[in-house]
Amino acid sequence: AFNSSKSGRSPRSRKGRTRLKYHPVSSAPSPPASHPLGQLDCLITFHLLHTSPCPYQFLHSLDEHMLPPLSFELVATCSTTKARAATLTLPHGSLSLPLFMPVATQASLKGLTAQQLEQAGCRLCLNNTYHLALKPGQAVLDSVGGAHILQGWKYNLLTDSGGFQMVSLLKLATVTEEGVRFRSPHDDSPMLLTPEHSISLQNSIGSDIIMQLDDVVATTTPDRHRIEVAMQRSIRWLDRCIAAHAKPSSQSLFCIIQGGLDLELRRECCKEMIKRDTPGIAIGGLSGGEAKSDYCRVVDTCTGLLPANKPRYVMGVGYPVDLVVSVALGADMFDCVWPTRTARFGNAITSHGVINLRNAKYAADLTPLEDGCQCVCCRPVSAGDDIEDGGSGLGITRSFVHHLATRETVGAHLLTLHNVWHMLTLMRHIRQAIVEDQYPSFLRQFFADQYAADKTEYPDWAVKALRCVGVDLMDV
Amino acid sequence: AFNSSKSGRSPRSRKGRTRLKYHPVSSAPSPPASHPLGQLDCLITFHLLHTSPCPYQFLHSLDEHMLPPLSFELVATCSTTKARAATLTLPHGSLSLPLFMPVATQASLKGLTAQQLEQAGCRLCLNNTYHLALKPGQAVLDSVGGAHILQGWKYNLLTDSGGFQMVSLLKLATVTEEGVRFRSPHDDSPMLLTPEHSISLQNSIGSDIIMQLDDVVATTTPDRHRIEVAMQRSIRWLDRCIAAHAKPSSQSLFCIIQGGLDLELRRECCKEMIKRDTPGIAIGGLSGGEAKSDYCRVVDTCTGLLPANKPRYVMGVGYPVDLVVSVALGADMFDCVWPTRTARFGNAITSHGVINLRNAKYAADLTPLEDGCQCVCCRPVSAGDDIEDGGSGLGITRSFVHHLATRETVGAHLLTLHNVWHMLTLMRHIRQAIVEDQYPSFLRQFFADQYAADKTEYPDWAVKALRCVGVDLMDV
Repeated sequence: AFNSSKSGRSPRSRKGRTRLKYHPVSSAPSPPASHPLGQLDCLITFHLLHTSPCPYQFLHSLDEHMLPPLSFELVATCSTTKARAATLTLPHGSLSLPLFMPVATQASLKGLTAQQLEQAGCRLCLNNTYHLALKPGQAVLDSVGGAHILQGWKYNLLTDSGGFQMVSLLKLATVTEEGVRFRSPHDDSPMLLTPEHSISLQNSIGSDIIMQLDDVVATTTPDRHRIEVAMQRSIRWLDRCIAAHAKPSSQSLFCIIQGGLDLELRRECCKEMIKRDTPGIAIGGLSGGEAKSDYCRVVDTCTGLLPANKPRYVMGVGYPVDLVVSVALGADMFDCVWPTRTARFGNAITSHGVINLRNAKYAADLTPLEDGCQCVCCRPVSAGDDIEDGGSGLGITRSFVHHLATRETVGAHLLTLHNVWHMLTLMRHIRQAIVEDQYPSFLRQFFADQYAADKTEYPDWAVKALRCVGVDLMDV
Repeated sequence: AFNSSKSGRSPRSRKGRTRLKYHPVSSAPSPPASHPLGQLDCLITFHLLHTSPCPYQFLHSLDEHMLPPLSFELVATCSTTKARAATLTLPHGSLSLPLFMPVATQASLKGLTAQQLEQAGCRLCLNNTYHLALKPGQAVLDSVGGAHILQGWKYNLLTDSGGFQMVSLLKLATVTEEGVRFRSPHDDSPMLLTPEHSISLQNSIGSDIIMQLDDVVATTTPDRHRIEVAMQRSIRWLDRCIAAHAKPSSQSLFCIIQGGLDLELRRECCKEMIKRDTPGIAIGGLSGGEAKSDYCRVVDTCTGLLPANKPRYVMGVGYPVDLVVSVALGADMFDCVWPTRTARFGNAITSHGVINLRNAKYAADLTPLEDGCQCVCCRPVSAGDDIEDGGSGLGITRSFVHHLATRETVGAHLLTLHNVWHMLTLMRHIRQAIVEDQYPSFLRQFFADQYAADKTEYPDWAVKALRCVGVDLMDV
């Protein structure tokens, strides 16, 4: 049912518009965080910002009190599957896990204001380090005091390392022990992203969760040796990231398990990464076109080894079916551009599958995108005319979205609001089912809704994966 | 200071994407509203809609009670200038005049949701008949029950006749007594927009204020005869529009004064139009590149003849300076795409003039777009985390808008929110000054703010126009 090659994060190419500000190899100054004096400068800048007359002081309040940057509390575990419900507390608020994180590449979720993202229920979203490093660049990020202030976002942020975009966007990227070497898409000059520089950039961004630079190799590569080298290098790079991290009291560094589809390599990587005791752990390198059965095997193997008291983040996963299965396999956090990107293609995610609003059959359809959906688009307009009444919905009809779909960007925004709400609500329902220890019946209902109760349509990989954790969807 | 050639409504060409659904000449069926049986059909459709199980019933409630579709109450008049403050009541709520109306061409204000437009304080916006007639088309509009329902907009709508776009967008349009003839940009077939068909379309749209089809000739044309023909034809077309109007109890038809820059023709047109006793009166054909002094002369002449008890709408006007002068000359309502279009070019309107956020000097500027502005963008983020709290601002900085300006559509949306708020707030301040009989001192302060108190920068045409209504900005 799902085309796995479309899964995962595959950002649009931005060539011709990009302007690289990463550390140029030629001049080769040490990035601030990798140098003792640089670290000091960084801390001074950080503290100076706190005493400046900034109207966004509250954004720093938690940093100022130097609370632990992450706490993880298990709330419930499923008695059948490996699913967990937990509470994750970060500097900008508490979060309920399992959790889906929308991707705000350019410090904005594709057309939505921070207020709209907040109203969609989002309390943790991603920013891409690569894009923020290009524009506004590290100097501006330092000058304004980080990405929260830049974008007026009072909740949590997670940033990737920047390495993934490097490898996926730039054709000439090569990986050496030092870091990722590439040519600037701006002026073709040689550039280098090291683990230290990635962390320095993320320190300047000030995201609540920062990711290590890892050596990402396509899971579908036949070169087992390259995958092993990448896995080992990712471990060494984690050590360099930990050493370079200048703000461990306000930003939590997550490691990333690599090892391709080789379960032995994954096990070895888990063992080494666990030793480094980072506050959270990611399972990386997936959603790159591998068979779903292989994906499940890797997630299942890793969660079987990872400590129970830390959040587990599977990177680049976003289809509803993938999420419910991955949660059953013991994963807690996910991110993907799919819900927002597919909105821009005119698609609404519903409990009964995806519908494309560009289809002419919706031209005069006055029903909401999904009956009963409580997102701001689908909720009816209330009769009140209080302009402060955020409680009124927009009463958006399929007809209106069809009308807008190809002519006005607001069509995509409305679908983005709906899709983000849908994904976050799906996760809330998953969590509730786990807390009530009803996750197996939740799964049965989810698949029945998705495939109109036609079991012959259930994807084989999902049926098999769930069978491995004690739920047989094919039972009568 | 202002380039008048950029003023007014000049919608982007949409050729290559348009699909005409206007009445084709070849088959030539009477448009519904021009035929007795057609009118009956139309009314039946209208009433059927009221009894259908539509979730947006409240949108019809005022129509159902058949209240008068427009009432106009003069609240105050300036004791020096010709400025007026009034209250205009339409089927979807009361409005304070003077009023600026943003333009939502495609039934959406360029990237904003209806909720955002509402939060910007807008209670009356424009839809373009030409664009809605192309898509979704009259059949869908009839089927869904009009444009309010289509776009989930619970406040007032005004539509133009469609004729202006026809003449300005389509190269091959020709005007005959019958209507505007043109070739379909879709399949090049001959098409005709008659006064009857324009009204029929606007009846299907269901806008609270509808405009007559008029014969618009560029004010800068040297052909006085053509202007006179157009003026006389506009009067005859008004009569046809009145006869064709199928919903006078729920939609108010405004006439449009024509006559170019010829004050004799304008006077004659005023006299004839006033006889027809429409609920509101527009001054048309301006903002087409004429000298501002000519513009002022026409507005001043018309308002001197128009009855005091009806709203006066000057079409296509939108620069702040033009608005404050036009109000002094006795005009009440205005519309223009400029505030929203200029937002998409990265411009924020402020009391001190327009600033372009693309300028690099704003990269690390943490101040709001305008200090003290209460729009949702400029208002600080409140510390509360209530997702229903529409009262919290976004705390958007110039830095963030600069960051987004060329990379993310939300940059344009934020500026659109600010600019619309700015224009509506300007009108509120104008009204308050009139009510307090302080409009002359308001004007002095307005010009001082706009031009940094440098009187040599004040536009000569504005100084002269205001002198004619008793305010000399050059007084010490």
